[in-house]
Amino acid sequence: MTEIAKLTPIIKLIHKALETDQYGQAAALFLRLRPADRADVFEYLNEDDRGSLLNHLDIATTADLFDELDDQQTVEAAESISVERLADVLDEMEPDEAADLLGDLSPERAEQAITEMEEAKDVLHLLDYPDETAGGRMTTAFVSLNTLTTADQAIQHLRQLSPDNDVPYYLFVLDIDEKMVGVVGLRDLVIAKPHTPIHEIMDTDIISITPLTDQEQAARTMTHYDLSVLPVLDENSHLVGIITHDDILDVIEAEATEDIYRLASVADNDLQPDSGTIEQLRGRLPWLLLNTLTALFASWIISIFGDLFVKVAILAFFQSVVAGQGGSAASQNVAMIVRAIALGKIENKRIIPILIKQLWVGLLQGSIIGIIIGLGVGLWQQNPYLGLILGLALIGNMLVAAIVGTLMPLLFQAIGQDPAMTSSVLVTAATDSLGFLIFLSLARVFLPLILQYLA
Amino acid sequence: MTEIAKLTPIIKLIHKALETDQYGQAAALFLRLRPADRADVFEYLNEDDRGSLLNHLDIATTADLFDELDDQQTVEAAESISVERLADVLDEMEPDEAADLLGDLSPERAEQAITEMEEAKDVLHLLDYPDETAGGRMTTAFVSLNTLTTADQAIQHLRQLSPDNDVPYYLFVLDIDEKMVGVVGLRDLVIAKPHTPIHEIMDTDIISITPLTDQEQAARTMTHYDLSVLPVLDENSHLVGIITHDDILDVIEAEATEDIYRLASVADNDLQPDSGTIEQLRGRLPWLLLNTLTALFASWIISIFGDLFVKVAILAFFQSVVAGQGGSAASQNVAMIVRAIALGKIENKRIIPILIKQLWVGLLQGSIIGIIIGLGVGLWQQNPYLGLILGLALIGNMLVAAIVGTLMPLLFQAIGQDPAMTSSVLVTAATDSLGFLIFLSLARVFLPLILQYLA
Repeated sequence: MTEIAKLTPIIKLIHKALETDQYGQAAALFLRLRPADRADVFEYLNEDDRGSLLNHLDIATTADLFDELDDQQTVEAAESISVERLADVLDEMEPDEAADLLGDLSPERAEQAITEMEEAKDVLHLLDYPDETAGGRMTTAFVSLNTLTTADQAIQHLRQLSPDNDVPYYLFVLDIDEKMVGVVGLRDLVIAKPHTPIHEIMDTDIISITPLTDQEQAARTMTHYDLSVLPVLDENSHLVGIITHDDILDVIEAEATEDIYRLASVADNDLQPDSGTIEQLRGRLPWLLLNTLTALFASWIISIFGDLFVKVAILAFFQSVVAGQGGSAASQNVAMIVRAIALGKIENKRIIPILIKQLWVGLLQGSIIGIIIGLGVGLWQQNPYLGLILGLALIGNMLVAAIVGTLMPLLFQAIGQDPAMTSSVLVTAATDSLGFLIFLSLARVFLPLILQYLA
Repeated sequence: MTEIAKLTPIIKLIHKALETDQYGQAAALFLRLRPADRADVFEYLNEDDRGSLLNHLDIATTADLFDELDDQQTVEAAESISVERLADVLDEMEPDEAADLLGDLSPERAEQAITEMEEAKDVLHLLDYPDETAGGRMTTAFVSLNTLTTADQAIQHLRQLSPDNDVPYYLFVLDIDEKMVGVVGLRDLVIAKPHTPIHEIMDTDIISITPLTDQEQAARTMTHYDLSVLPVLDENSHLVGIITHDDILDVIEAEATEDIYRLASVADNDLQPDSGTIEQLRGRLPWLLLNTLTALFASWIISIFGDLFVKVAILAFFQSVVAGQGGSAASQNVAMIVRAIALGKIENKRIIPILIKQLWVGLLQGSIIGIIIGLGVGLWQQNPYLGLILGLALIGNMLVAAIVGTLMPLLFQAIGQDPAMTSSVLVTAATDSLGFLIFLSLARVFLPLILQYLA
């Protein structure tokens, strides 16, 4: 997937240069790479190499590198340089990235760095907002104009900003009370007559959010209206920050990871296959322990029918088939509902038709699989009534799966919980317990008939 | 999630206007909405309303609407208007969207529309590329310049293009042989001196892909390098199209849906909770049928130990606990590996350390849960050896889960299959069968000791 193979030769060259104390040479090689590739290369160097390279990069390059690295890598790198250097780098970083980094550092080190920073104000302001809100994602690096500026003056202003800053594609227009009243795209500026005042070319149809809007909602708004930048306004319509389209990609990927992890009962969204043992246990064990409880509950249900196994041991061969098929069907249901909710495709008025459709599909799937397994096992075990109760139990458990798999995520959504929290553990707890209950109850009812066919 | 509630008043007004044959009024109300909201409102109108509204919108608005609607909705709308009108709309649509729509229409209707179209060439060209490639995603609506154009001439050119077209943020620079040699951003044009030739301000570090590059790879390249547009070059470095950042959002959402669905054994990425019955069965039944086979295989393994249940019925109560915990742990493993692969975080050289880590975590989780369940069941059933074999079997199956859950998705990736295809059905087939095998084999070995404690 990644293109690290292409980068291997340069990684070797940089490593060699660092080993032989040719730090300038190593830094020069590093600088030739594109910023995103620098992050990849940096991650592949060993700890010693990283440390010596970091001390020989200029502040701007280090800031770019910190912007590109993963959160954890950035923290490690930030811990390995002097506080003075760190403060300079933080001043140079995008304010939102700097705020994120400060939030991830140890409180002491963050405080030291803030004391040394020259432009701490903007960044400190961002630290006030919770991580997963628009305020936590936004940057304060935007350009604002007043309504009477002309197109030509705006362009002059942008020329002055460059090359210290990237020129933004959108400029925000504030009235005399500093309230945001419009937005002007670079393209409108370019094609406007030079003396046109901004208020004549600005777009006054402002789509905005508040600092405490959830980041997922912000992402939805941006994708829905195809925006590449979304202004964040406080209660007085003052522009406090902007969210840009690259933030949205991060949010969407993070939300997809969260859904996939929760559906698979992994509680920690940052968990990686090679994360530390403590993190692994913290992220995975709680759901498995819950699974332990529900599994023992299912065992207890089976134990109610304990005497049956002495008389008809073959019941023990097939009880898991009923439970397993129900669990698989329920997982399919949950995945569809969770995804439909995430993509904004479910409305309240559609719940009843969906449930009816899913019950119907459950009935059909249960019947098809019930007939196949019923016939198959009936012939294999030479016991038509065993086949019959297996088939009936499968149909019953498929209906259970349709109800639980459809309604449980919707219920979680309704009570303000993440529908993906429904996860396989909770839903299969229901299909397991009820699957065993239905199958073994039928076995009890049909016991005399099943026994007839046993040798 | 969606904001349809806010739109309800206008939906009612439009419906009322259409009912009373005030079509102009309805169209005017519709036009007042933002394009993305128009699509939402349109989806909420009934079929009659949609038909009459469509016939009273101008071509440009209809084209915008088609660009915004879901694929299926667009096809329905396109089927409901005359071929002549459809051809005009297709001419007006973005070429990539028009190509997608033509691909979704019935072959006869598509052919009729193409015959009537004025600008079919660009669109037909796009139809040649497979759906999930860069060629299938790209648009041919880009602006190119030659190297000797000046910044001022380029801006004049853009002024002429507008207002018929959106002014693009990036312009592509071609040499005398029509090969792409650079890219110029609007911001570079704006801040450059008017007479600067393009070749002095263009960026010659071109990141590009080929038309047959997989769309996911294209999305990765754009997110990795934070690009808002990615040129697609043929083998002769001729620019054949561009991919824009809104396409990437679609790709990333589609890929996340695909992963979530495959992990939950749903084979059709377009399946919705309220999709038709045939689509539901086609998308879900195949995996459940495969599950049937693996479940019967697990039943057969249990049947080998059939005599045990007659002697020790309680074994039937607990066999599913071992299988179930293994399945849950394996799902966690698969989710982590699939996501790490999707986000490009796994390299070959990291596989062995990951496997060792996961085996270690499996051992720890197995031991913790094994001790809890072993002690719990041992006390509950007053049978220490039953507790012992349960605990040992849990540890064993957790190790199986770690191996299968880690290696199976990596193996699928290595042989060029989607790692998410590993899905719960395949992995739990392994943890079920081996879980039963381990538990019942241990039961056979410890049988005399277990029997001692039975009344």
